[in-house]
Amino acid sequence: MTSAPRLENLPRTIELVRAADGKAELVYVDQRLLPGELAYARTRDWRAVVDAVRSLAVRGAPAIGAAGAAAVALWAQERAESRAFADADASSYLSELEHVCAQVASARPTAVNLSWGVARMRRAARGRVLAGGGAEEAAAALFDAVKALEADDEAANRAIGAHGAALLPKGARILTHCNAGSLATVFFGTALGIVYAAAARGKVARVYADETRPVGQGARLTCWELARAGIPVTLICDNMAASLMAKGEVDAVVVGADRIAANGDVANKIGTYGLAVLARRHGVPFYVAAPASTVDKALSEGSQIPIEERDPAEVLPHPIAGVEVWNPSFDVTPAALIARIVTEDGAFAPGDLP
Amino acid sequence: MTSAPRLENLPRTIELVRAADGKAELVYVDQRLLPGELAYARTRDWRAVVDAVRSLAVRGAPAIGAAGAAAVALWAQERAESRAFADADASSYLSELEHVCAQVASARPTAVNLSWGVARMRRAARGRVLAGGGAEEAAAALFDAVKALEADDEAANRAIGAHGAALLPKGARILTHCNAGSLATVFFGTALGIVYAAAARGKVARVYADETRPVGQGARLTCWELARAGIPVTLICDNMAASLMAKGEVDAVVVGADRIAANGDVANKIGTYGLAVLARRHGVPFYVAAPASTVDKALSEGSQIPIEERDPAEVLPHPIAGVEVWNPSFDVTPAALIARIVTEDGAFAPGDLP
Repeated sequence: MTSAPRLENLPRTIELVRAADGKAELVYVDQRLLPGELAYARTRDWRAVVDAVRSLAVRGAPAIGAAGAAAVALWAQERAESRAFADADASSYLSELEHVCAQVASARPTAVNLSWGVARMRRAARGRVLAGGGAEEAAAALFDAVKALEADDEAANRAIGAHGAALLPKGARILTHCNAGSLATVFFGTALGIVYAAAARGKVARVYADETRPVGQGARLTCWELARAGIPVTLICDNMAASLMAKGEVDAVVVGADRIAANGDVANKIGTYGLAVLARRHGVPFYVAAPASTVDKALSEGSQIPIEERDPAEVLPHPIAGVEVWNPSFDVTPAALIARIVTEDGAFAPGDLP
Repeated sequence: MTSAPRLENLPRTIELVRAADGKAELVYVDQRLLPGELAYARTRDWRAVVDAVRSLAVRGAPAIGAAGAAAVALWAQERAESRAFADADASSYLSELEHVCAQVASARPTAVNLSWGVARMRRAARGRVLAGGGAEEAAAALFDAVKALEADDEAANRAIGAHGAALLPKGARILTHCNAGSLATVFFGTALGIVYAAAARGKVARVYADETRPVGQGARLTCWELARAGIPVTLICDNMAASLMAKGEVDAVVVGADRIAANGDVANKIGTYGLAVLARRHGVPFYVAAPASTVDKALSEGSQIPIEERDPAEVLPHPIAGVEVWNPSFDVTPAALIARIVTEDGAFAPGDLP
């Protein structure tokens, strides 16, 4: 059985800081370089943050929520610094804000956390400006709002971990897909937050990580992160999960989520739905871990969730003449296949989400 | 709908030939170089053939059956050419034969076709030697036996194609896994033999090819082969098959087999079992195509089939400290999930295999 996870070995994934000159600066792990190199990028340019989200330098629904929020805060700082616009009236400020928020929120379509993070900043900025605050006050308020969002994210993850750990048996062998780890959040993780919380209680025997083609978040990120935290981890190819379950080696499947519809249908990394079907056949409980901000009550069911399709080159770097590629990044798991959805508020049957 | 497949564009995968000097020589496609390069290797050394099978230069159950047979024939030629041993007595010849056959047959454990091909040569050699033939006559007999096996393989595949094509609807969209194509056989293929035969009857709309991690036989071989034959093909990652079925895009799953137990359980490339579970959930018929030589009546059920585990480096080329890898090459699909097993003798319910 594992000893306590060594969380001190894990980086903070994304963090808005005040640089020496007092300016806000976003510091984030460039996840495209893992597992080879743990490198931090720093930027004050909100457009660079949007690019980081598009290019998967920052990925994971909660992490891109934090990135989206930080992008708006960096825009507000830029706006406050610009002599040309600092004195513009509130209505032009708010119109620019709308434009920037729309651009940031559209960087990726599936994870609702991105537009959620942006909307939280939009509200904070509008409130300050409509109350008569200037661009500098709005920028300061957004910095504080991002820091609050970051703190909320970690707190939510730790609560998810506690609720989820209670669901697992002693000696649990857990299968996970993609990376819903600390690297997918500000810190601690959602699905892997449950692993860390369970490991701290001595309940985790091993984690099996799907490699998660085509981008390899399981192979590159989940394995790296778990090994760094001292959790026993075995990498498998996505197509090996069925055999692993048939051998009786999996006690629970735990995954994250990019968007959850009101009925409990869950959009998550492509391959999640197939795992849920396999788990059902083998009598393995299937758990989804996500902050409550992932629930999109505006959508009654999963079929309404937009599914991002990405570049065929992710699947086939060197095209073969005459060969097409289909590369959806997400799929939808129906609520009926999910045992519990674990949020910071508790572990819920999918139909009973608050 | 597809026009007739352009089979003339496909190479013969493996072929024993007489070189200009009259010596037997094995010519085979080195499949490790595909899809980048279609390159033929030539050898007269039976040990090199064993290496080619081990290294996956030649792969696919029927193709390694042909390779195993050719290896024994090349040994017989070497034996006949060796002055030191040409005059040895029958009993020492037969004892060497046993030794060589055992080595060749153990090159890979799962596909029964390999030991089947070797056993066919062993019988031919023993028969000739026990009837008073010398090493040269045995070598000549084995050359002829390999050529017969090659012809039988193509004929079986064409019969499988005809039986299987009859099962498919007009406009069929077929999902396949790994490569059970012409490249997996001497020529024409088993699962893809069904595709070619159905395409010739105008019944194929599209083939979806799983990339088949970790070795990528789907991405590298099936896509290349189908594109060359003019069949519309779309590559997906293994973890996308569930979504594709949920979208109603798959009319049938057709795969090959490495060994079939007497009860109809099927060992095939890792990931096959998961596909069969998904096909069942989505009401998609699941077909297995293989020559009758793939049926191992000595094994009553699939759990008795040895499953090869290969090098972790296939999954994770650059090890990550603390990360283990599980890399089974095959899995077992229970007969209950299989609609029909198609051999050269017909299309059978798994429990009714002749």
